[in-house]
Amino acid sequence: MAGKKDIKRLVKPCVRKLRAYQAEETAGVRVKLDANESPYGFSLSCGAIASNRYPDPEGSAVRRVLARQMRVPKAQILLGNGSDELIYYLVTTFGGPVLYPTPTFVMFGHIASALGERTVEVPLGDDFDLDEKAMLRAVRKERPKLTFLATPNNPTGNCFSAGTVLKILEASRGIVVVDEAYMAYASRRGFVPLLADYPNMAILRTLSKVGLAALRLGYLVASEEIIQEVDKVRLPFNVNAYSQALAEEALADRKGARQNILAVVRERGRLEGELGKFSGLEVYPSEANFILFRVRKGGAGAVHAKLIKKGVLIRNMDSAVKGTLRVSVGTDMENTAFLKAMKEIFNEKGPTRSKGKKKS
Amino acid sequence: MAGKKDIKRLVKPCVRKLRAYQAEETAGVRVKLDANESPYGFSLSCGAIASNRYPDPEGSAVRRVLARQMRVPKAQILLGNGSDELIYYLVTTFGGPVLYPTPTFVMFGHIASALGERTVEVPLGDDFDLDEKAMLRAVRKERPKLTFLATPNNPTGNCFSAGTVLKILEASRGIVVVDEAYMAYASRRGFVPLLADYPNMAILRTLSKVGLAALRLGYLVASEEIIQEVDKVRLPFNVNAYSQALAEEALADRKGARQNILAVVRERGRLEGELGKFSGLEVYPSEANFILFRVRKGGAGAVHAKLIKKGVLIRNMDSAVKGTLRVSVGTDMENTAFLKAMKEIFNEKGPTRSKGKKKS
Repeated sequence: MAGKKDIKRLVKPCVRKLRAYQAEETAGVRVKLDANESPYGFSLSCGAIASNRYPDPEGSAVRRVLARQMRVPKAQILLGNGSDELIYYLVTTFGGPVLYPTPTFVMFGHIASALGERTVEVPLGDDFDLDEKAMLRAVRKERPKLTFLATPNNPTGNCFSAGTVLKILEASRGIVVVDEAYMAYASRRGFVPLLADYPNMAILRTLSKVGLAALRLGYLVASEEIIQEVDKVRLPFNVNAYSQALAEEALADRKGARQNILAVVRERGRLEGELGKFSGLEVYPSEANFILFRVRKGGAGAVHAKLIKKGVLIRNMDSAVKGTLRVSVGTDMENTAFLKAMKEIFNEKGPTRSKGKKKS
Repeated sequence: MAGKKDIKRLVKPCVRKLRAYQAEETAGVRVKLDANESPYGFSLSCGAIASNRYPDPEGSAVRRVLARQMRVPKAQILLGNGSDELIYYLVTTFGGPVLYPTPTFVMFGHIASALGERTVEVPLGDDFDLDEKAMLRAVRKERPKLTFLATPNNPTGNCFSAGTVLKILEASRGIVVVDEAYMAYASRRGFVPLLADYPNMAILRTLSKVGLAALRLGYLVASEEIIQEVDKVRLPFNVNAYSQALAEEALADRKGARQNILAVVRERGRLEGELGKFSGLEVYPSEANFILFRVRKGGAGAVHAKLIKKGVLIRNMDSAVKGTLRVSVGTDMENTAFLKAMKEIFNEKGPTRSKGKKKS
C-alpha cells in the first residue's frame, strides 16, 4: 500500500512538475475586467429540462444551428466542454510535437505538457504578428503533429497575417488548429470558408466570449475525417443537457448577439482612445474584446495592485509580455470606472464619458 | 499539407484503432430503461445565473455541500464533468498499467486505451464477485498504477466483497479507485469512512444515477495529496455554472433524494420478484438501480429487439455477459409496461401491478 508520501512518486513525471491553475482572488472586486467575458449575458430558462436524463451524446440540436450559421455540414462540427476540452482531445488524438507561437493562449502549452507531449515555442515577430520565417523553419524541422494559431491572439489582441497562416498550412504535414475564440470581434471573417481547400486545417470556436461563458461550449470545425478521429476520444456525454438547451436558445437570438458585439467594439474604440491619451502607456491595437497595454516605466504590477484596491480587476500579463496589463472591454459604466481609477493612479484628469450619439 | 487520406496516418496508433461511442437509437421508444437513469428528476430554476460569466473554477459551493454530507474536508473533493472526466484525469495523472475486473463499466478500458495506456483485465469469479486470488496475483505481477473497482458493479449489479477490496488496497503500490456510482441504492455504506486508513484509495461518485444525469457532475474523494495531483491536469472551468448552481440546489433537497431512492429500491424488489417468476429467465440479485437477467435458452438479442418494437428500450449486455439483458428500474408505470411487454413476448400471464400498502 502506498503511503501519503509515495503518492507523488506514482504521478507521471510530466504531470508531477505541473502546477494547478490558480484562480484570481476576486473578493471586493466590483468591476471585473480580467477574463475576457462579454459584459452582456442572455436571459435563459431551463425549466423544461428533465434533470434525470442523460444529455444528447451527439449534441445534435446545437450542432444543427451552428452548421446553419456557418454553412458547413453538421458532420464537420464537434462540441466540447469549452474549447479547452477540444484542445485536450486534439492532443490526445494526434500527439506531439505541439507547435505554437508565444505569447499565446496558455492552455496550448499547459495541456500538451499535461499529456506528456513535447512543445515547440516560436516567439512572435514585429507587431506581435507571426514570425513567418521562424514558424516555417520550425514546421519543417520539428514536423509538429499539431500547430496552434490563435487569431485574434490572446493576450496580444491582433490577428495574424492570413497569408502567413496559409503558408504554415501548406508547409505542415500535421494539423494546423486556428483558434478563433475572439473572431466575433475582429474586422475580418475567419477561416471557415477555406476549410474545403485545407484538409489539415481545424478551427476552434467558443461561445465563451460572446455572452455565454457560463455554459462551457466550444466547437471544432474541420473535415469529416478529422472530426471522426477526434470523436473517438471524446467522452460520450461531454456537454451537459442544460448547456445544450441554453446554447440552442441563445443562438436563436442572432440580433441580440450582434448588438452585444457591436456595443463591445464601440466601447473598445473608446477605451483605446482614452488609454492612448496616457503618456505613461503604450496601447496595442486590438481586434478582440480586450486591450493589451504596456506601462512604459515599468510598474505594471503596482498599477494592477492599485486597481484592485480601487475595486477594479484586470489581468497582469507581465509574465507573457514584459510590463503589460490586459483589460477586457466591459459595459460603458465598467470601462468608465476603470478609466477613472487609471487616471487617479496616473494623476491625470478624469475620463470623457461616452454620450449618446457623440462619437468617442 | 496533409491530404484527406493522410489524416488517419497522423492519428496516434492507440486512437486509430478505437471506435467512437455509438448512441442507441431511441426513436419510437416510450419506456426508456436502458441507461440506469433515475426515473425521478428535480425541478430546478436557473434564472439568476449570469450567462456571460465563467463558472467558479473551484466549484466551491458544491464541494462545500458534498463535504458536509460526506463528512470529509472540502480539500479532499474534486469535481468532474461526470465521473468519466475524472477517470480521464486519473489515467492522465498516474498512467498505466490500468487494472480492472471484467465485465465492468466500459469507460475504464476505453479511456485507458484512448490515452495509450496498457490495460489488464481479470475476469470476475463466482456470483460476479472479485476473483481474489487472480486479482492479487495481477496486482503483484503487473504493478498497476491504477486499479478500478466499481461496487456495485455495472452491469452485474452486485457489490464486491469489502474484504477483498481491502486486500487489494493493501497489496497495491498504485492507486485503487473504488467507483461508487450506484452506492446510493446498495444495502451497505461505501468506503468513504475508510479513506483515512488507505492513503492510496480514491472514490468516485456521481449525481447521474440519483436524478441528475443531465448535469454531468461526478466527484472524486481521496487524500489531499491525490486530489492535488489530479487537479493539475484538470481543465480550470470543467464544470459549467448551471450544473454547479443546480447541483447545489438539488443537493439541498435531501428528503426528496431519499424518497426517490427508496421508491427505486422498492420497485427493484417488485421487478426482481416478477422477473423471477419467468421460467425462461435467470435473474441476478442487484444492489443498484438496474437488474441484469439472462435469457436461459439464448435469444437475448431477439427479446431485446421485440421489446423495442413494443416501445420499451432496455440494454443488451450479451457482449459483456453472454445471453443477458439489463433493465433500469423505472417508475411503477414504466416497470409495469416493461413486465407486460415481457409477458407478451414469453407468453406468460400479465404482471401483478403493485398496489398501495400491499408488499410486492
